[in-house]
Amino acid sequence: MSAAADPAARRTGTGASAEGARPGQDAALPAPRTAGRLILMPNTLDLGTTRDQPPAPLGQVLPALAITTAAALRHWVVENAKSARAFLKRVEAEVALAVPLQQMDIRELPRPPKGGHPAGGKPAALSPDALRPLLQPALDGHDIGLLSEAGLPAVADPGAPLVRAAHAAGVEVLPLSGPSSLMLALAASGLNGQSFAFIGYLPQDKGERAQRLRELEAASRRAAQTQLVIETPYRNAALLDALIGTLAPSTQLSVSVGLTLPGGFTRTDTVAAWRRRLAESLADMPADVPAVFAFLA
Amino acid sequence: MSAAADPAARRTGTGASAEGARPGQDAALPAPRTAGRLILMPNTLDLGTTRDQPPAPLGQVLPALAITTAAALRHWVVENAKSARAFLKRVEAEVALAVPLQQMDIRELPRPPKGGHPAGGKPAALSPDALRPLLQPALDGHDIGLLSEAGLPAVADPGAPLVRAAHAAGVEVLPLSGPSSLMLALAASGLNGQSFAFIGYLPQDKGERAQRLRELEAASRRAAQTQLVIETPYRNAALLDALIGTLAPSTQLSVSVGLTLPGGFTRTDTVAAWRRRLAESLADMPADVPAVFAFLA
Repeated sequence: MSAAADPAARRTGTGASAEGARPGQDAALPAPRTAGRLILMPNTLDLGTTRDQPPAPLGQVLPALAITTAAALRHWVVENAKSARAFLKRVEAEVALAVPLQQMDIRELPRPPKGGHPAGGKPAALSPDALRPLLQPALDGHDIGLLSEAGLPAVADPGAPLVRAAHAAGVEVLPLSGPSSLMLALAASGLNGQSFAFIGYLPQDKGERAQRLRELEAASRRAAQTQLVIETPYRNAALLDALIGTLAPSTQLSVSVGLTLPGGFTRTDTVAAWRRRLAESLADMPADVPAVFAFLA
Repeated sequence: MSAAADPAARRTGTGASAEGARPGQDAALPAPRTAGRLILMPNTLDLGTTRDQPPAPLGQVLPALAITTAAALRHWVVENAKSARAFLKRVEAEVALAVPLQQMDIRELPRPPKGGHPAGGKPAALSPDALRPLLQPALDGHDIGLLSEAGLPAVADPGAPLVRAAHAAGVEVLPLSGPSSLMLALAASGLNGQSFAFIGYLPQDKGERAQRLRELEAASRRAAQTQLVIETPYRNAALLDALIGTLAPSTQLSVSVGLTLPGGFTRTDTVAAWRRRLAESLADMPADVPAVFAFLA
């Protein structure tokens, strides 16, 4: 990302909490307000496992600030409790936990309604009333960690309504840096990184999907906007087939598979070029590793 | 981000390079192909300086893999040579450099055409011919690092055409994880993280800007799509004023200032609520720290 002004002239923000920054707090994090904060904790993209190898130590793939902050928390709201415990064991392998894992307060986000991923991209309807109790530790003065199964919480997962509920309840929200598969795929695609849209999942129905792809391609052409879509891994090859079959020959198509994992790759070419090696390309798509697809008309 | 399949069933991708993975290589990174790779190196968001404090050690804010990989490189293509050298000094404070800084091959990306940021979001027109010489070290078998002034290269900066040239030249592209101000702002906003668009800069002309904002708001309403925009820091307050004055009262507006920096904050509320404390909000906007603005109609 570009810096738009002289770095030498920079200073940090004035702060926005009513209390302002307090002296004597840990310099690594902004000073807490009276109430606890909702801390957005990044997870790795490896989902706890890599082929034929143990997953990388957490310190290789997450910044130290995230790991030491995670080790100090005792209240969590998570997408999945089992994978959250696995994450905390990886944290413990690097930094002693403030509270034994068994004594941690780990609550799961309410599940979104059944029926697969919403094709329209609307978040699952979780009412503020249903979410407010999850924020009680913060209202009582304790920080809460929000953790997803992979990557940044509240991006391409059901966590955003809890963040919005935190703002509504006056709970400070602190996002910590970590891997984002969408931004890694966008950067590695070489497609326009100055205008892009994340669409989420496309419709499953073939006709509807083709129709939606043509709309997105037209929007991409109009605004020079890179379009990013994802799919459940076992449908990776089917989505690639649909993209290659539906988009215009001159459209640039990029596929990123297994980002940050051994054997991961990104390939960008025109749809015409993808068509020339269709069978090989489909065979290269793993059915059990996440992929991100990007195109620019 | 959600995992769409059972983590226990996962393995990594099959690899796509013609040579495949080679045994005996560093396990931390995928095996190199015969030619060198273009490695997308994340930078911090602090631009090398924070108010009244030294910037955080690099290990606090970047994963160890990025730092050790940076220390091993001798060829760089960068947005700004001066800030790249400052970054490499911070790397050297953590890990010995393979080559003294003075002997590094550091080249700047060709500057985009003058006249400010393109409002349409189109990347600066850098021809493949102008960029190909920058990739020569990779063609000769040496890895090249691509580094921006802040955050991930090729996202919201002029680096993407070089990445595309790398794909065209058969040079493998390897993105490394690091901070992304856009994703941190999106996550911290609590707005829809399952459908969003990054617009970049809005037109400077007041009338054009208002017109564009109304178009974006209509698009946001139609697709439940969060819209992300940025501005040169000294115009932060002017943009906030325009957003508050132009968007509908019920639209949700989020402002993230100084992400990852001391005193940074994120505030989300309806435009109606922002209007009620307009003067205070404008006074809180620093003129020298980057901000990200998000809204959802």
